[in-house]
Amino acid sequence: MKLTGNLLIGAREIAATAGSMKALNPALNVEIEPLFAFGGIEEVNRAAQLADDAFDSYGATSLPERADFLERIAEGLDVITPELARRASLETGLPVAQLEGEAAKSALQFRQFSTVVRQGRFRQATIDRAQPERQPRPRMDHRMQKIGFGPVAIFGASNFPISYSVAGGDTASALAAGCTVILKAHNGHPGASEMMGRVIQQAVKDSGLHEGVFSLIRGSGNEIGEALVDHPLIKGVTFTGSEAGGMALFRRAQQRPDPIPVFTEMTSVNPTFVLPAALAARGATIGDGFAERMLVTVGQACLKPAILLAIDGDGYFELKEAMISRVEAMQARTMLTPGIFTAYRKNVERQSHAGARRIAVGGEPESAWDGQSVLFEVDGERVLESPSLSEEVFGPAALLVRVRDVEQLIAIAKQFRGQLSATMQIESADHALAASLLPLLERRTGRIVINAFAHPQEVAYASIHGGPFPATSDSRFTSVGMSAIERFLRPVCYQGFPDDLLPEALRQNNPRSIWRLTDGEFSKA
Amino acid sequence: MKLTGNLLIGAREIAATAGSMKALNPALNVEIEPLFAFGGIEEVNRAAQLADDAFDSYGATSLPERADFLERIAEGLDVITPELARRASLETGLPVAQLEGEAAKSALQFRQFSTVVRQGRFRQATIDRAQPERQPRPRMDHRMQKIGFGPVAIFGASNFPISYSVAGGDTASALAAGCTVILKAHNGHPGASEMMGRVIQQAVKDSGLHEGVFSLIRGSGNEIGEALVDHPLIKGVTFTGSEAGGMALFRRAQQRPDPIPVFTEMTSVNPTFVLPAALAARGATIGDGFAERMLVTVGQACLKPAILLAIDGDGYFELKEAMISRVEAMQARTMLTPGIFTAYRKNVERQSHAGARRIAVGGEPESAWDGQSVLFEVDGERVLESPSLSEEVFGPAALLVRVRDVEQLIAIAKQFRGQLSATMQIESADHALAASLLPLLERRTGRIVINAFAHPQEVAYASIHGGPFPATSDSRFTSVGMSAIERFLRPVCYQGFPDDLLPEALRQNNPRSIWRLTDGEFSKA
Repeated sequence: MKLTGNLLIGAREIAATAGSMKALNPALNVEIEPLFAFGGIEEVNRAAQLADDAFDSYGATSLPERADFLERIAEGLDVITPELARRASLETGLPVAQLEGEAAKSALQFRQFSTVVRQGRFRQATIDRAQPERQPRPRMDHRMQKIGFGPVAIFGASNFPISYSVAGGDTASALAAGCTVILKAHNGHPGASEMMGRVIQQAVKDSGLHEGVFSLIRGSGNEIGEALVDHPLIKGVTFTGSEAGGMALFRRAQQRPDPIPVFTEMTSVNPTFVLPAALAARGATIGDGFAERMLVTVGQACLKPAILLAIDGDGYFELKEAMISRVEAMQARTMLTPGIFTAYRKNVERQSHAGARRIAVGGEPESAWDGQSVLFEVDGERVLESPSLSEEVFGPAALLVRVRDVEQLIAIAKQFRGQLSATMQIESADHALAASLLPLLERRTGRIVINAFAHPQEVAYASIHGGPFPATSDSRFTSVGMSAIERFLRPVCYQGFPDDLLPEALRQNNPRSIWRLTDGEFSKA
Repeated sequence: MKLTGNLLIGAREIAATAGSMKALNPALNVEIEPLFAFGGIEEVNRAAQLADDAFDSYGATSLPERADFLERIAEGLDVITPELARRASLETGLPVAQLEGEAAKSALQFRQFSTVVRQGRFRQATIDRAQPERQPRPRMDHRMQKIGFGPVAIFGASNFPISYSVAGGDTASALAAGCTVILKAHNGHPGASEMMGRVIQQAVKDSGLHEGVFSLIRGSGNEIGEALVDHPLIKGVTFTGSEAGGMALFRRAQQRPDPIPVFTEMTSVNPTFVLPAALAARGATIGDGFAERMLVTVGQACLKPAILLAIDGDGYFELKEAMISRVEAMQARTMLTPGIFTAYRKNVERQSHAGARRIAVGGEPESAWDGQSVLFEVDGERVLESPSLSEEVFGPAALLVRVRDVEQLIAIAKQFRGQLSATMQIESADHALAASLLPLLERRTGRIVINAFAHPQEVAYASIHGGPFPATSDSRFTSVGMSAIERFLRPVCYQGFPDDLLPEALRQNNPRSIWRLTDGEFSKA
């Protein structure tokens, strides 16, 4: 696919109006071709107007039409996977094989949301039939379905440059909901972004949809993102990235004359609790597994296990040695961007200053943005005194907490802010302690894992990638999994409607045979 | 029931710490006994700590335990209905019979949410079974349920002093979700608030629950509300009232270090579109029905039909005459509070200044806070020029818009801000026009009614009392109906859990036989 570096505003290509950039190959620390256009307020205005113009007709697509469109995007991703992974690898330093996996996950997500659309259950169709004989007054027929709430702005993530970027889960779930999308591409991988943007643009065309269903925009600095968040025609925002970046967008959107929903997925240390019997039985295996997971994708995953808590006792030594071995054996690898590299180095220093002991370091850096792996150890007391030790270090670092006893373990658990996930390693003898930790973890995390690690994340019906603040800005939603679509839906009730005016999902004969709740019971009738 | 005027903080009664007040009988413009205590920051802190302390155990109640608790509140409301309605009538000027209806609705809502809890469908239990043979790697067992997100602050509404106040739908749905509640009582009806608070306090005790499940607090000015919204242990807020009040709370909560969900239900003019064939066939009937609904509860209902749009033509004269007749025949009646009365008078003047013609006035006021009914008429052009004409006038006033043609009707429809409801009056010949208006209304309203009026609101599974801003602060939720519970729920995923550690809703044998989604299909197995 030839890259032009243009913005994709509806069906049109727009050359630079506000400067341009080249991508950086972080492994070689050199810029790569071509020039990528920056847009400005004009382009935001045009894309937002198109997204609004397209909303009614796109929202009115039938379930099969919309499902076919999502399937077409998946097929387009399949076709470009090899070149997409190569380009993304050049732009991020991540291995091609890993990025091919991401592309496969992206296509899978579009296929899964195609299925979600075809099933129609996301409409949450609900019917309360008329009760003409009811006293003291009759009940009219009431029917409810969920529809997309309007055009949304999606900020591409940097750390998964394919599966949570332009053609990522946010885009798939927003389009599935019936929302039109303006994608603000991350400048860390502009070429990969353009490739995915073109696949979606082509699928819009091939599906005969209004061009405004999708636009891809890019800008320097924060201006273009702010313009998107402020735009009166934009009705929702999603973002994956840092707490500072996410909260800036969130607070800005809440200051609009009409505040809009903003879902930001921000920060999590995904604590792992190794309970005593598991520690004694499998200390080395757990330590090795933890360190393996923490180092995946240079520790730049939102689900990286970053903190391991274990009560000092049988198995602790073996656990620690296994962690040290794996960290020491890991070579330094290129981080995603110079900015992420710099922040990583600063945060590693922060941990040292806060009293964490550096007990293992990986291989020496060989090029400019190579991240060196680091394992810290600290005593439980210190974590209770310095809660900042429990803050995320984005990159290949982790913290082993040597806990004194169960009381201290519980005290530390209570101190955690909101998390995407938590893990417990347990044996049968640990069940009672696990049961007493469970309510603490339920209040603080979106997903609790037993005897595995939180990364990687399944994408299925029960998947939750969410959690209390600051894991996300709204604990009621998830950004991964089939229910990610709920972020973009709002209910509409139709009262007293003749059948021919009802939307398809609510018609008497249930033409698509979707699951509906009728008078309190589910059926496909 | 003897009123003490005390605050109810958990199981305790707290006397005034920050001044006190008496209720006003607005019909007679005299204060009535007893003194009602104001609390301050200390009481907020204590109630919030109790609500947090109670959260884990209350959240862990079984479905039948929680359902029984809600049923107990309903029974308590049944018992006090006569004296509750009498006291509320003294404090609001609303008729006793109407308030008995409200009390019945309150009890009904607690019974309905008791059923919702017993059914357990609100858990949205979802199971993706393990796939140990899956390639390239096995899938672990994933299960998801929804739980309450934490202690919530609920601001009692003034206009429905029973059914949307202390024992209103917000309280019922929050308690059903498993959230603990701090109720900030409205100072418009402190005695009725105390009565309902005591019913809930007693039900907490009789159910053997932690005292912190419910507290009732009261304060002067905004300080106590702000302290609640700011409190770190409070995890959500609901509010029903003015746009200014709701947005102040909303924006304040979004400025917390950890923003929390705030659902405010604020303002709506509930436009009624009378399409040409319906106007010709039933102009007088529609005009009469509209005016009857607009005058209910002295026009102080969030679902009051406040604007009627009709294209000038056959039936328009009859419609207008019928509206005029009913408005002129209506006597002036006491409004809820002096503040609401004053705002009403000011807003009626605003409509006149904006160019609306006063075509009917009701009977003259006989006492200080009597609201006189007013009907305005205005041409469509004027509404397009002065969008402020479409803003709410809280009280017994409405606006008849004489529309030139279909194009103008659509232009006005596009100009409306978000609404709780909209109504279309149609005959068969109007279906094509209704179908073309429908997407405009879907984008702007939470409920669309055909050939009826939006008030009163059914409370059932498909009920929606929500809508785009400024009808509410989050169009994805409703404050009335069975799905109001969703405002207070967040998902938690359990991955790889042994059966004995799973919450009841997700156990293998489905002990309560609730609806669950297993591998994408609903069943009670």
